[in-house]
Amino acid sequence: MDYNIVFDALKTSLKNAFEKTGAKKAVIGISGGIDSACACACACAALGSENVLCYYLPYKTSSEHSYLDAKKLSDTFGFKLEIIDITKMADAFISTCENITPLRKGNIMARCRMICLFDKAAEHNGIVLGTSNRTEMLLGYGTWYGDTASSINVVGELYKREVYGVSAAAGIPESIMKKAPTADLWQGQTDEAEIGYSYEMLDNIFYDIEQNNYDISKLYAKYNKEDVKNIVKRVIRNSFKRSTPFICYSKIENRNKIDENKFLNLEI
Amino acid sequence: MDYNIVFDALKTSLKNAFEKTGAKKAVIGISGGIDSACACACACAALGSENVLCYYLPYKTSSEHSYLDAKKLSDTFGFKLEIIDITKMADAFISTCENITPLRKGNIMARCRMICLFDKAAEHNGIVLGTSNRTEMLLGYGTWYGDTASSINVVGELYKREVYGVSAAAGIPESIMKKAPTADLWQGQTDEAEIGYSYEMLDNIFYDIEQNNYDISKLYAKYNKEDVKNIVKRVIRNSFKRSTPFICYSKIENRNKIDENKFLNLEI
Repeated sequence: MDYNIVFDALKTSLKNAFEKTGAKKAVIGISGGIDSACACACACAALGSENVLCYYLPYKTSSEHSYLDAKKLSDTFGFKLEIIDITKMADAFISTCENITPLRKGNIMARCRMICLFDKAAEHNGIVLGTSNRTEMLLGYGTWYGDTASSINVVGELYKREVYGVSAAAGIPESIMKKAPTADLWQGQTDEAEIGYSYEMLDNIFYDIEQNNYDISKLYAKYNKEDVKNIVKRVIRNSFKRSTPFICYSKIENRNKIDENKFLNLEI
Repeated sequence: MDYNIVFDALKTSLKNAFEKTGAKKAVIGISGGIDSACACACACAALGSENVLCYYLPYKTSSEHSYLDAKKLSDTFGFKLEIIDITKMADAFISTCENITPLRKGNIMARCRMICLFDKAAEHNGIVLGTSNRTEMLLGYGTWYGDTASSINVVGELYKREVYGVSAAAGIPESIMKKAPTADLWQGQTDEAEIGYSYEMLDNIFYDIEQNNYDISKLYAKYNKEDVKNIVKRVIRNSFKRSTPFICYSKIENRNKIDENKFLNLEI
């Protein structure tokens, strides 16, 4: 695959979608990881780095190294980087919870970051750009209404390995390309250890299901049966994270879901 | 319309949707207003009040009266009501923002409440029930990723006046039925003053567009032309709040949106 072409396509699509919103600035939360770096590089190329406002949003346990990588990105692409420490905000609630698990804490952190980003967008007449890739969206590896929340998701069509491809084409610094993906929720955490599978294997299985239209027998012939079952079950179980809330049926005669076209077609 | 039948339909739909999730508890944020009261009454009737956990989530400026109405609901329907004050959490961030507007503060509050509710759901093996009615969803009168965020929205098919109809059928106390709808973001706020139109008029216009399939000439003949324009424009402008984030196009050959059926059809 020629990732320069993919990079160009993403830039064009982002530019068009951004202009439709009427916003002046793009707001991105930068973690120091590859996904936000890739989204950020696309945004700087598409919109001009002077229109890209990036925020590094550490919690007290965040790695110092993550900040250095965010800073390196800022030096490379020329966007403005600000730090907003979410510790006080998150701990104001976390401190009231007994026996809170790391997962719950991680979700609170991700949602506090969402609050900061959407408020910064409101402050600067901006919109929030999302950085969730296709592999993690399929897995549901992310916080609903947290890091998965955005107005425009830049890299959501790309499997994890494709994010690396576009990142290389975009000139992301090598130290960011080479480090192990991590949500940085606790020391030493890596995505792959937490998920239980390598991104390479996940990408392969997802690609075979979605792009090669493998049926179950072909999947079982190529991969470990239990792995396939676990992964597909997880995709199905977390499908709610990829949709808007279910709305209860009132059974009022002819009552349907909101059809946006009924308003668009009025041609006011 | 026989609202007893609508109430029954909502109960059945909620029960079915809830059971599919495998959750044990329903978590609802109770404001003292009619929408959350109606959702809560449906939930207690559908799931048993012992399985409904309600939270009143005041900010320091919230009206004392709102709590009394929440308490009255709890006494009427027998669900457990807890208070979580979001002031510290919200102010930890708000205090860092210069010249913050009431709208931005309101959005921060709504999102802090979302964090609390989703965490309580995680703590109690529950899911969050949403309380946004159809009229406010159409207007986009609500905070994206805030009060509009839930797993199952109980009253989302109902126009505002239908929420009152179901609430009467469900036995909501009169004081809650009769007070002016308010987001309670500042003293003396009412929805209708903030929106600029009465719910009665909004309901009528939306009903004519969505249910009676009025075209623009029929709308102009019945309502003030500028009002129709303003309201329809607002519905269109806020359509993003009713959908998941736009995903940029990579133009990779045959690359499409995620099709859940490709996983469901594997029949693992």
